[in-house]
Amino acid sequence: MSLLVVGSVALDDIEAPAGSVKSVLGGAASYFGVAASFFVPVRVVAVVGDDFPEPHVKFLASRGLDLGGLQRVPGRTFRWGGRYRASLNERDTLFTELGVFEHFDPKIPPAYRDSDWVFLANIQPRLQRTVLEQTRAPRFSAMDTMNFWIEGAREELEKTLAVVKGLVINDEEARQLTGESNLVRAADAIRLLGPEVVIVKRGEHGALLFDDDGVFAAPAFPLREVRDPTGAGDSFAGGLMGALASHGALDRDSLRRAMIYGSVLASFCVERFSLDRFRDLTRSDIDVRFDEFRRLTAF
Amino acid sequence: MSLLVVGSVALDDIEAPAGSVKSVLGGAASYFGVAASFFVPVRVVAVVGDDFPEPHVKFLASRGLDLGGLQRVPGRTFRWGGRYRASLNERDTLFTELGVFEHFDPKIPPAYRDSDWVFLANIQPRLQRTVLEQTRAPRFSAMDTMNFWIEGAREELEKTLAVVKGLVINDEEARQLTGESNLVRAADAIRLLGPEVVIVKRGEHGALLFDDDGVFAAPAFPLREVRDPTGAGDSFAGGLMGALASHGALDRDSLRRAMIYGSVLASFCVERFSLDRFRDLTRSDIDVRFDEFRRLTAF
Repeated sequence: MSLLVVGSVALDDIEAPAGSVKSVLGGAASYFGVAASFFVPVRVVAVVGDDFPEPHVKFLASRGLDLGGLQRVPGRTFRWGGRYRASLNERDTLFTELGVFEHFDPKIPPAYRDSDWVFLANIQPRLQRTVLEQTRAPRFSAMDTMNFWIEGAREELEKTLAVVKGLVINDEEARQLTGESNLVRAADAIRLLGPEVVIVKRGEHGALLFDDDGVFAAPAFPLREVRDPTGAGDSFAGGLMGALASHGALDRDSLRRAMIYGSVLASFCVERFSLDRFRDLTRSDIDVRFDEFRRLTAF
Repeated sequence: MSLLVVGSVALDDIEAPAGSVKSVLGGAASYFGVAASFFVPVRVVAVVGDDFPEPHVKFLASRGLDLGGLQRVPGRTFRWGGRYRASLNERDTLFTELGVFEHFDPKIPPAYRDSDWVFLANIQPRLQRTVLEQTRAPRFSAMDTMNFWIEGAREELEKTLAVVKGLVINDEEARQLTGESNLVRAADAIRLLGPEVVIVKRGEHGALLFDDDGVFAAPAFPLREVRDPTGAGDSFAGGLMGALASHGALDRDSLRRAMIYGSVLASFCVERFSLDRFRDLTRSDIDVRFDEFRRLTAF
């Protein structure tokens, strides 16, 4: 049940209708790792600069994250700034300062190489592949990607898609990757590129799972207040992979339950800024909301 | 189990990536009535001009629609033209010719006044109220509306909302009606205006039911091909109200199953242009897809 994530750890500035925060903990590996940590211990490979605040390190460690693969190098941590519009469905990137993330070269510590479950968060697709090359045949590997690589590194991206078992991608990126506006056909096309399991994230509309068993639709949890959508997709992936690793199975029921756990973690994520909702979240809170998802969908 | 619908019967010109059609059968009451007709006989109150093609009348009658309330008056039938963009999520109205619909004055035939289930499709809210005034205390009345009335006839609309039991509305209209971008809060606000049951349609993302039992999320059926989204919302409402009337109950389980039947009918509707998919649809097809919705959502 060893779970490895490779991706960004960042400092975010976020402006949203509910407020603004500066230099808060962010990054795909942070959201993923903390969300997954409610299910299994998580091994993290990432890089931060020498400006990265010690309290963030302590928080990640307090959640049971193994930070043996967190490189600290001279320079500035990856920083991202974004502003959400009133509807929360659109955001503008205010700045992206890659800092030490620009030359991130993921080195998988020897102790991590036996990881059974591997998640390649959104980094350069060639680097995602080098991570897989450093591991010993994980049971399940999944990846995320983004428009930047779809446009600018398609050849590398297709090589990586050919060797992972799962892709977790948002709807617009699925359309962009395949040129198919219909999501069912887009998922078909992606599965032909390699991944047996394709999960399409649709933000406030939930997520769809496509695999040999057909399609599964997980709704998003209807929340009365969303403060900060940042990291929802990575928290979804963390809950999903954490639940799979914890259950140790990839059958139809395990995948579907994992989709709901992913949706549960995403729903908590957006209730507060940054990773703050996870600071006092308990496994019991998660199970209560899992049951609420049953009531939300049962007929 | 008598079900009454009052609304438009129209002739549509539709342009979509899958093709173009002219002067095809359309209108909210047509889609609603035919979708509902798979569950119960349906009484229709609407108006058409003397140009309305006899084959359309025959088709509606062949589906068991009671057309005793279909007024035929001199003049042209309501005509609407629309063009869908490549994604099918956006459409431009090319023309709207109200014709005889402009002076539609819904007269409920005496034989319809005992209708137990009443659906007020999208017409002037004052007219919707006059329909209710002509009926004898239906068990359940629901209505649709649109941005035009929200902007231009809010006072009348609020009076009508105060006397119906259900509202079926799309997400953007729910936001516009309440000024709330969050759909849960928008539904709360609408329920304060009168309707105990609020159903928010979200197109390809499904529909949400808000009532005293909380929230229920029905996904849209993931289709490999959508030819013509016209009438999906009215077919949803028809499947929903038809299933409710057929079951004769308004409890939690009946409402949730009706939401799925609505989604089933909407999913068939968009597979072909106009109401064409309903021409050879069978109750057995509906039940098969209902079961597919179970597989789509079960975890």
